[in-house]
Amino acid sequence: MFANTPEPPYYAVIFTSTQTADTEDYYAEMQVIEPLAAEQPGYLGMESARSPEGLGITVAYYDSLDAIDGWRQNVDHQRAKARGRAKWYQAYKIRIAKVETANSFERED
Amino acid sequence: MFANTPEPPYYAVIFTSTQTADTEDYYAEMQVIEPLAAEQPGYLGMESARSPEGLGITVAYYDSLDAIDGWRQNVDHQRAKARGRAKWYQAYKIRIAKVETANSFERED
Repeated sequence: MFANTPEPPYYAVIFTSTQTADTEDYYAEMQVIEPLAAEQPGYLGMESARSPEGLGITVAYYDSLDAIDGWRQNVDHQRAKARGRAKWYQAYKIRIAKVETANSFERED
Repeated sequence: MFANTPEPPYYAVIFTSTQTADTEDYYAEMQVIEPLAAEQPGYLGMESARSPEGLGITVAYYDSLDAIDGWRQNVDHQRAKARGRAKWYQAYKIRIAKVETANSFERED
């Protein structure tokens, strides 16, 4: 559920989106594309949440900008993005950020 | 819903969390703390999503590390964090990242 990322620095792709009413094939596409994303060299993990009828946020982590660029150029990814713009997404933002520090908390009980 | 952030560079605080079963007062606390967070000088906006019974992701944007540090030192925020660790959160990760590039898509129809 949490991405098991290493010590910083590394990179985060923050993808925030709202969906259209047309979710046909969306979940089937995600089942195909997420394992492919994980095969990208330099991929470190992904965290994802979508509120019912609200915003979705997916953060994918990579060890370098080259890894992000490699995934950007992946043809299956480009096909999925085109379908996303044509059908599933009302709007989205993609922000690429360099993670500089990280902290975590875990309940002991 | 989307944070209306300016052109990069700016900073993102990526907060991912799982909750305990004890959500008493959680939403009331959020109603208090979110407007206070927005008063922090340098605050640029926030995006938040929580899947039912799953991961929550909140990304807050700031114009500088000083702004992030100012909010970290806010006493109301420190009180809310202590309550969060005592009651609401099973686990969380906080990553601080510098946003270097941003793109967006918006459906035309």
